[in-house]
Amino acid sequence: MTGFDLATLPYCSFTAADLDGPRVGVGLGDRVLDLTTLAQTLVPDQAPVFAAGTLDRFLAAGPQVWARVRAALQEAALEASPTRPVGEVRLHLPFAVADYVDFYASRHHATNVGRIFRPDGEPLTPNWDHLPIGYHGRAGTVVVSGTPVRRPSGQLRSADGTIGFGPSARLDVEAEIGFVVGAGSDLGQQVGVGEFEQHVFGICVVNDWSARDIQAWEYVPLGPFLGKSFATSVSPWVVPWAALTDARTDPPPPHVELQDYLSPPGQGLDLELTVAVNGTVVSRPPFATMSWTPAQMLAHLTVNGASLRPGDLFASGTVSGPEPGQRGSLLELTWNGTEPVTLDDGSTRGFLQDGDTVTISAAARTHDGRLLPLGEVEGRVV
Amino acid sequence: MTGFDLATLPYCSFTAADLDGPRVGVGLGDRVLDLTTLAQTLVPDQAPVFAAGTLDRFLAAGPQVWARVRAALQEAALEASPTRPVGEVRLHLPFAVADYVDFYASRHHATNVGRIFRPDGEPLTPNWDHLPIGYHGRAGTVVVSGTPVRRPSGQLRSADGTIGFGPSARLDVEAEIGFVVGAGSDLGQQVGVGEFEQHVFGICVVNDWSARDIQAWEYVPLGPFLGKSFATSVSPWVVPWAALTDARTDPPPPHVELQDYLSPPGQGLDLELTVAVNGTVVSRPPFATMSWTPAQMLAHLTVNGASLRPGDLFASGTVSGPEPGQRGSLLELTWNGTEPVTLDDGSTRGFLQDGDTVTISAAARTHDGRLLPLGEVEGRVV
Repeated sequence: MTGFDLATLPYCSFTAADLDGPRVGVGLGDRVLDLTTLAQTLVPDQAPVFAAGTLDRFLAAGPQVWARVRAALQEAALEASPTRPVGEVRLHLPFAVADYVDFYASRHHATNVGRIFRPDGEPLTPNWDHLPIGYHGRAGTVVVSGTPVRRPSGQLRSADGTIGFGPSARLDVEAEIGFVVGAGSDLGQQVGVGEFEQHVFGICVVNDWSARDIQAWEYVPLGPFLGKSFATSVSPWVVPWAALTDARTDPPPPHVELQDYLSPPGQGLDLELTVAVNGTVVSRPPFATMSWTPAQMLAHLTVNGASLRPGDLFASGTVSGPEPGQRGSLLELTWNGTEPVTLDDGSTRGFLQDGDTVTISAAARTHDGRLLPLGEVEGRVV
Repeated sequence: MTGFDLATLPYCSFTAADLDGPRVGVGLGDRVLDLTTLAQTLVPDQAPVFAAGTLDRFLAAGPQVWARVRAALQEAALEASPTRPVGEVRLHLPFAVADYVDFYASRHHATNVGRIFRPDGEPLTPNWDHLPIGYHGRAGTVVVSGTPVRRPSGQLRSADGTIGFGPSARLDVEAEIGFVVGAGSDLGQQVGVGEFEQHVFGICVVNDWSARDIQAWEYVPLGPFLGKSFATSVSPWVVPWAALTDARTDPPPPHVELQDYLSPPGQGLDLELTVAVNGTVVSRPPFATMSWTPAQMLAHLTVNGASLRPGDLFASGTVSGPEPGQRGSLLELTWNGTEPVTLDDGSTRGFLQDGDTVTISAAARTHDGRLLPLGEVEGRVV
């Protein structure tokens, strides 16, 4: 799925057989424009930023350059520019991921997971309403959409308590939105909720693959590790934050009085995610239901003085809405495998089988009700 | 503390007022040798590896190059080479940290922490004996020794359960050893315990600063985040694994039968760490008591197919021995502040005060009983 609106103008990194190296691309409909070449005439003083063919230098260039390049693209007669079909290029990881952080910002997701994993306790831990819970993931295994995902092996505890080793039997997906940091910050500097747009360049679609059985055995007391670190897939397109103005929305009200650094909350996004397994749509998670905004996530991430670097990626955590058909993971959709979903071919899934292809796409709902495609992330289990 | 033996030959990255850029250095006694310059005559075909003045390309070059350069240094008459006093150069972060993982490999540390944080439960979680527990930390806030460490602020829960915000009142250290990955691995490839030396270049000394009050409130269910991510300090010297042959030792026997991928365990290291606060030695943690070897940590980290990159850093977790004077954190040394330690000036510490300087050093015990300095990591709380 591409079909990008002229108001979206997402960025990618691509190669093609007739080109001598990677190029920064701009998505237009179902075509891609070579910005590395076009920049030489469109924004000549910024041409070096795109020369290497990835977004790394553009991210680091900061919000004034982002705005100038976007304005120049919007003012150009792009329909008349030479483009090539997306299907004829190869899309790459668009930027070098510095640190990867995953949040846990959906109340519905956290509640479902709590009920499944800790059935005898309160579903939400006491800190959940007070802060956006997050943890660091593995930046080195963030891969671009289309990269095959190998089913991980690891230690597994069987129902009778014996410990074994083998391939995960509960391989799952997590439908998320990722936020891409452009301009960095200094060690010791807090980035307030109001400074979000000075640092965050844009968003991508994320599939945070999860091996639930490996995770369940390993994660106490220091959190997820091998149950997540084998692969995290991202869409090849980074949609600039500036393209999402029409999709901004107010987040749900907090359940407790928030600390000053998390208030006012900033804005959420009215995005509709779609999760498909082998072409069957199994869920449509609504991002507008997320309890924590990306500005709150960033403010929390830096409130201890942790610095940001260009290429830092922080993801929302699984997006799940209140309805059963809005859950962003198979763990929740099938209630830990006990209520399998049925695909169009009549087969059922508790968790993923080898050969399954998962596609997560996102679209922005504008104030006049249109859905603008933002890209997708796909991966096949091998 | 430097005083490096001719058998140690650690590497660093340094600058000096009379030089036009950073150089890779080799430590010799209390002096540093300019390997970026020397390599042009000593190992001319490898000179480009050192040209940028950091260890990045040397790490990626792999074990054959590591061995060749070390052999060339050992065969050269280094005592006659031009060197400069360490005190006259500035030492930098020696390599770009890719992913940072922290383990939890000391049974004594994990038991102490469990007793303090979960007094009503078993001190060790059921998985502890079966696998080396680890989690990802923030690579972007790994700083070189000497970098001031700002006391972090964050959410704190008081004894009566109210949630507040302010500077951490329980700022702590964790004395650790870090393992520096040189040669990477492919996604999907498991690096077995026997392949450790093909990937790990060397070790450094690590202080994993921890804000215990922030950590205690945030860490359930997804692990430590802001309580750790504000700073992790590393020594400027990376000691090659090849220099530690004489310090190798067998680890303590496991308490359960291990999965095949963690066996045989590989070797531990007989290192003595020293933790000093404002010059007063408060602890001497013995690394030989660690339950998991670095080869087991690496095998676990990659058993799910997670790839390695040059510059990946994985640390042991706090090194604590069985005796009270061997504990590698103030949390344990003062039993969560209830039994303060007394410094040489007569003052006491439960946790760190502003202005305190913490120095963690490591030395390798050879088979004939000598202690060879391996460098130190120092930081002052501001």
